Amino acid sequence: MTTTPAELDALVAAASAAAPVWLTSAADTRAAWLRAIADGLDAAADELVPIADRETRLGETRLRGEVARTTGQLRLFATVVEEGSYLELTVDDADTSAGRPELRRLLTGVGPVAVFSASNFPFAFSVCGGDTASALAAGNPVIVKAHSGHPELSRRTAAIAAEALRAAGAPAGSLALVEGRDAGNALVQHPVVQAAGFTGSLSGGRALFDLAVGRPDPIPFYGELGSINPVVLTPAAVAARGAELAAGLAASFTLGSGQFCTKPGVVFVPADAGFEASLAAAAADTSGGPLLTERITDAFPAGVGALTSDPSVAVVGYGAETADGARPVVLSTDAAAVAARPQVLLEEVFGPATLLVRYADEAELHAALRAVPGSLTATLHAEASDEVGETLELLQSRAGRMLFSGWPTGVTVTWSQQHGGPWPATTSLHTSVGATAIRRFLRPVVFQDAPARLLPPELRDESLARLPHRRNGVLIVP
Amino acid sequence: MTTTPAELDALVAAASAAAPVWLTSAADTRAAWLRAIADGLDAAADELVPIADRETRLGETRLRGEVARTTGQLRLFATVVEEGSYLELTVDDADTSAGRPELRRLLTGVGPVAVFSASNFPFAFSVCGGDTASALAAGNPVIVKAHSGHPELSRRTAAIAAEALRAAGAPAGSLALVEGRDAGNALVQHPVVQAAGFTGSLSGGRALFDLAVGRPDPIPFYGELGSINPVVLTPAAVAARGAELAAGLAASFTLGSGQFCTKPGVVFVPADAGFEASLAAAAADTSGGPLLTERITDAFPAGVGALTSDPSVAVVGYGAETADGARPVVLSTDAAAVAARPQVLLEEVFGPATLLVRYADEAELHAALRAVPGSLTATLHAEASDEVGETLELLQSRAGRMLFSGWPTGVTVTWSQQHGGPWPATTSLHTSVGATAIRRFLRPVVFQDAPARLLPPELRDESLARLPHRRNGVLIVP
Repeated sequence: MTTTPAELDALVAAASAAAPVWLTSAADTRAAWLRAIADGLDAAADELVPIADRETRLGETRLRGEVARTTGQLRLFATVVEEGSYLELTVDDADTSAGRPELRRLLTGVGPVAVFSASNFPFAFSVCGGDTASALAAGNPVIVKAHSGHPELSRRTAAIAAEALRAAGAPAGSLALVEGRDAGNALVQHPVVQAAGFTGSLSGGRALFDLAVGRPDPIPFYGELGSINPVVLTPAAVAARGAELAAGLAASFTLGSGQFCTKPGVVFVPADAGFEASLAAAAADTSGGPLLTERITDAFPAGVGALTSDPSVAVVGYGAETADGARPVVLSTDAAAVAARPQVLLEEVFGPATLLVRYADEAELHAALRAVPGSLTATLHAEASDEVGETLELLQSRAGRMLFSGWPTGVTVTWSQQHGGPWPATTSLHTSVGATAIRRFLRPVVFQDAPARLLPPELRDESLARLPHRRNGVLIVP
Repeated sequence: MTTTPAELDALVAAASAAAPVWLTSAADTRAAWLRAIADGLDAAADELVPIADRETRLGETRLRGEVARTTGQLRLFATVVEEGSYLELTVDDADTSAGRPELRRLLTGVGPVAVFSASNFPFAFSVCGGDTASALAAGNPVIVKAHSGHPELSRRTAAIAAEALRAAGAPAGSLALVEGRDAGNALVQHPVVQAAGFTGSLSGGRALFDLAVGRPDPIPFYGELGSINPVVLTPAAVAARGAELAAGLAASFTLGSGQFCTKPGVVFVPADAGFEASLAAAAADTSGGPLLTERITDAFPAGVGALTSDPSVAVVGYGAETADGARPVVLSTDAAAVAARPQVLLEEVFGPATLLVRYADEAELHAALRAVPGSLTATLHAEASDEVGETLELLQSRAGRMLFSGWPTGVTVTWSQQHGGPWPATTSLHTSVGATAIRRFLRPVVFQDAPARLLPPELRDESLARLPHRRNGVLIVP
């Protein structure tokens, strides 16, 4: 099913009509709308999860967990709206002796937002996922481009959310769905659309980014595109807990059949420390499984093949054979090869594969790390005795999240969470997960010498008495 | 003088070497570096102002004021760095029962920043202007592309700032200058450069924006490009204080020979209320003067001519004749013509010209306002008895600063100030003036389960005890 240009125009016009209602909605109203979507999805989980499993084959346990994460995100953003810090209320009183006017600033919605869903998170990064939740929380209607990997789920999710919004009193046009690549391309170029969020491949994201910034009036495009998520194990860490690290890594790179954007794809390990054998043993107990789509299924062996075609690369071990889908595979190479051919060896492979990179010393490690592109995460497993200054600096400059224990495949959704990183991890200096994701869909406006009656309610003195704000340079939490 | 590619490479390499020093500099150190530049410029004002006046012809009074604004901006950002809210410190403690790790988030510098100076503010939006101050405050070295309109001033300013930084202990490569269009184009495409700030024309800004977003690794480009700054006068306001409004408008559109990006370029006035005659009388007492560059001098009569070539446009009045430069001119048209031909009638004219637009009723006014492009400011002069809901909504959706008294040509630099607006006013959802301008040159990083010794100092508990932060969702101001 493909959305026609006429259908797209009608949906965008409805979003445009809904925009002022969302923009001026009171915090408690907007929060109630977000919670209504969450409640509607929770109530429909028994219907939605089987559809999702049939379309994505991610399994019921994972998908039920993902519904909970998705509704948790919506409820977190309801809290963020009520708490009010996101408005960045800032007041400078008039100073007549200095000839300074009164200024009252806030952040406000940008207008209708386009959201492009991901294949690998059919709930949490799709129709009612984090981009949608944060755009609505910012006071903007949303038009979602459905992912072709789960069309029926997208339609049902959109219908349930629309009905929940209607029942809660939100305007028609608050949340719409379009399908088909042409409709997606038209959406990001539509004059009414003011910003876009995207989670997906580097090639798909770049193409949409180019359309967004190529408009006569460019709009911000927040894309989460690709990430190899480097991991560094120090010799001391491997010596102290090599088997534990191998077990953790094996579980992480095969989680969800290796289809997480935070999958550890490249792991720097000390040479001659036995870690390859440890990981091969741990990986032998893992199993892969079906991948999300046919395209992804075909791409996995091609991606592994591109790595093994490099003369430096060897296969270290496999997971269990699988009748249907991808078999986990552990590859290895050395740091000199990575530093010499990063375009080949540091290409993201979507699926259950990881590449061990042996380093002989810190100089080799650091030379290879300098070739690592921007990533969502970087992980450093070290012991308290390790001197890791330069290693940490190199990792930190390339990643949005730095881990010092565990593995990057879990992403807790909280106030502080940050999901993004230097290109190609993301196209922007913003997060797509956690409370501050709302900032992407807001713009600042300042009111100079406004009569109280013409100020947005949030900027009036009676609101300042209960909302966090800065006044004459001083931060105030009532 | 043009910077050669080899010279550019050397300057960028020096900036790259300085970047980690700036990134990890303590707040008091970084603040001292910003204040050292401010002190250096203040001490050199007697040398710099005559150079600036010779190159820009803006006059000593204005230029001395601009030096003060510029050093005030640098000192404001020193305060912002010390205050620490800009770090957006956010901590969520571990919740082992929920399997949640500890997360500690902050904003950190992006790396070397390119700044493109403006012609019309040779201090405040140039070598050590707001973009440079906010980029340095964020912890990034800066490479400035000098504006060709004031090359000698740019060189002297850069030399004074570099010497002040050196004497204060900042690393070599903290602040550099390049000259020539080719060097500017190469700068914004240089792999080491991570973001760019720009103030200038729509055409020049768009060309650089396209280079920045067309890179293999696109970078954020914060451009302030063009603005017509609509003003609406209600019938009641004109009836109550028409002469006062005319005097204020005449002073504002001719200030600095009309070369402010916040100049009121289009003014909606009630038909048959006599405001055109009032403004013509007030404008007769104004004088223009020399414009900044030959290109701008030539463009002014061409821009005015493009307007008067429209059959709806009449000349209402002039300022005093001038031997050298541009003569102020007041034009008029009607709202129906603006709604029909916005591409002709709402084109920004840089220089002392403004266009009065007569409207017969609110319907005409609103139809014309819908054709107004994004602007830095919008001004509404109304009386308490006026119902201005829809007018305000239309203006507010098009502007970053809404004024309800006075005129937009003054821009106070404070915590709350906002200088930006929907395209083409700016390319982004950020301000280029005021404390929050620093956000443009920062990116978020979160630390998961980090040992205290590996955390950035700002995120350690001892820093949280004295810095504003959010912990487990609660905003805390120590």
